[in-house]
Amino acid sequence: MRSGPRGGDAIDAAVSERDAVGFVAVSGGSDPTSRYLTGREFDCDLAFVRVDGETHLRVPSTVEPPSLPVASVRVDDRPPGKAAAAVLAEHDAAQGTVLAPRTIPHDAALHLESAGYDLASTPAVEAARAVKDDAERDAIEAAQRAATRGVGRAAAILSAATVEDADNDEQSALYWDGAPLSTERLRRQVNTTLAAEGVDAAGATTIRAGTRGDGGEPVELRTGEPIVVSVGPRGPAGYRGALARTFVVDPDGGWERRAHVACDAARKVSLVEADPGDDAGFLGSELRAETAAFGFSMADEVTRDVGGGIGLAAREDPPLDGDRELVAGNVLRVRAAVTHPDHGRVELTDVLVVGDGGPRLLGDAPTGLDPSRW
Amino acid sequence: MRSGPRGGDAIDAAVSERDAVGFVAVSGGSDPTSRYLTGREFDCDLAFVRVDGETHLRVPSTVEPPSLPVASVRVDDRPPGKAAAAVLAEHDAAQGTVLAPRTIPHDAALHLESAGYDLASTPAVEAARAVKDDAERDAIEAAQRAATRGVGRAAAILSAATVEDADNDEQSALYWDGAPLSTERLRRQVNTTLAAEGVDAAGATTIRAGTRGDGGEPVELRTGEPIVVSVGPRGPAGYRGALARTFVVDPDGGWERRAHVACDAARKVSLVEADPGDDAGFLGSELRAETAAFGFSMADEVTRDVGGGIGLAAREDPPLDGDRELVAGNVLRVRAAVTHPDHGRVELTDVLVVGDGGPRLLGDAPTGLDPSRW
Repeated sequence: MRSGPRGGDAIDAAVSERDAVGFVAVSGGSDPTSRYLTGREFDCDLAFVRVDGETHLRVPSTVEPPSLPVASVRVDDRPPGKAAAAVLAEHDAAQGTVLAPRTIPHDAALHLESAGYDLASTPAVEAARAVKDDAERDAIEAAQRAATRGVGRAAAILSAATVEDADNDEQSALYWDGAPLSTERLRRQVNTTLAAEGVDAAGATTIRAGTRGDGGEPVELRTGEPIVVSVGPRGPAGYRGALARTFVVDPDGGWERRAHVACDAARKVSLVEADPGDDAGFLGSELRAETAAFGFSMADEVTRDVGGGIGLAAREDPPLDGDRELVAGNVLRVRAAVTHPDHGRVELTDVLVVGDGGPRLLGDAPTGLDPSRW
Repeated sequence: MRSGPRGGDAIDAAVSERDAVGFVAVSGGSDPTSRYLTGREFDCDLAFVRVDGETHLRVPSTVEPPSLPVASVRVDDRPPGKAAAAVLAEHDAAQGTVLAPRTIPHDAALHLESAGYDLASTPAVEAARAVKDDAERDAIEAAQRAATRGVGRAAAILSAATVEDADNDEQSALYWDGAPLSTERLRRQVNTTLAAEGVDAAGATTIRAGTRGDGGEPVELRTGEPIVVSVGPRGPAGYRGALARTFVVDPDGGWERRAHVACDAARKVSLVEADPGDDAGFLGSELRAETAAFGFSMADEVTRDVGGGIGLAAREDPPLDGDRELVAGNVLRVRAAVTHPDHGRVELTDVLVVGDGGPRLLGDAPTGLDPSRW
């Protein structure tokens, strides 16, 4: 279930092209770049050095150096930038240009510069991460399967929920398993299902009830309001899924239905139009335009957060709002959503793989508003 | 359940003391500093600016700006360093020294410098984070209660496990609920319990079986070997717990018992010696020395990873290997562990609060090797 180190070839190509002596990345805790480059999570300072086609890692003495399929993993208690410079110097790369991600910590950049290196930024790692290999795609698909089970659990509970006091109120409180059903109870049930499937909720499970519950405070669920169940689980190798569905128990209004039709139509656009060579930003614009075509305001109601690449991070390259070209192997989180101050939110989020034979949806979650039809 | 923004006073004091015009932090995704400063998780580029005693946030247009109790949250699609410089310029702070964490992304530092600012690093945020207020301590304590339930679930399962084929093998496979009990099955049960308690496993749950299972590949559990159950859950406001216990089903050797006595004795040292004014590194040395006193090698067997501050990150200030002075409000993860190539590992990890009345242990997890005594 663990993935190995990646990105070595892409870094070596960038180093060679830029006539650099090596590449350095520095992390001060768990982050997607270091996980990608090493294949595991480091919860500590880490210096990653690629030089002469080999990978060297330096960690502080307070962690036990893991055994990894790289040239060296050694303890060095100096700041990571100094430890990295020492590795380069050991490899007859005592001066010259060193490549690094543009977001390398400033102190590490200064340490490398004061050791005599010229620093230049490279997008090589982000670019490599944007194109998934088979194992990465499988890891995302596994997370997406678990996500489908998690949202399915919410659908099953909403489907089994009862109305305790169906009086004259326009909206009635939902009960489940003998107690009022709150956003927090539903969230815990979803997360329990995710855990049983072997994935981590990653703090990304949200339950939004109508116009309420945005601030994270638990509220009780009611009939007639759109309930958005959104998950973004992380699998054992660190790869994320993303799935959101909207349910209504005893719908009584037309807004949710119209919003749902719009989101479903927009979602289908992405399943037709995401081909290699297409413009990523154009796909995003199309998603928004298709949603708006059902009578929703681009400025106020249609979400701007239509998605982008997903992998070790919930948001990575390519974003769906730039001029990047889609390539086979991109894995995209695609979101259609409409929000209204009086009605709440309707959202459908999925993950798809861009491939030469057309886009492929990961997972098989139903899209309907009725939780009993899941 | 959510915590509000923190650190404003500490930043304002540092800005004033250094005669700076403001403070900038930049995050490219979820990280503990931005969570501390804003009180919520940002899964996107974020520019945090503190100027004139007010907080301003800038986010890209692809996210919906959240409503937060700060002076402004606005969209700015420029790189975060440029967006931050624009906020400073708007506040009549068009030149001068700007403070930032030493690990501010290098590109953001360069953008601030090319906008005319002198950048200086400040440890103000790390220092503020190291001293927890009551709400932070309560959040860690709640995560620790959930952690206790999670490890307790493992103890209950190990206690109920049976030996299917008690033949001549020295160690027999454990069965539970009709199937072999693997590290992965036990991990999922622990994580299911954590989720039901409302916390996130945070990818930190590990089950180590004797000398096996270090690489993350599932192995089947056996009698006679030390089984280390370690969790580090994250609560809804982002604060972490940390708990590890070691169990043996049908112990047959003396090593685990001796190692356990050593770890338990070392653990008790931390419960007596962690007082305000004490040296954090000395506490770490004492923990290691006390463990070694039972006949274990400091160089090879006693862990160097004895812990340090815990909060929004699993590792934060103060580390237990430096010369930092403990102060009331520090919350420490304290670990005693022994590892042997033939026997495996024994570990006890707890969380305690440093206070004027002496250290206080968070949680009430039993320490024994026998899971049926939990």
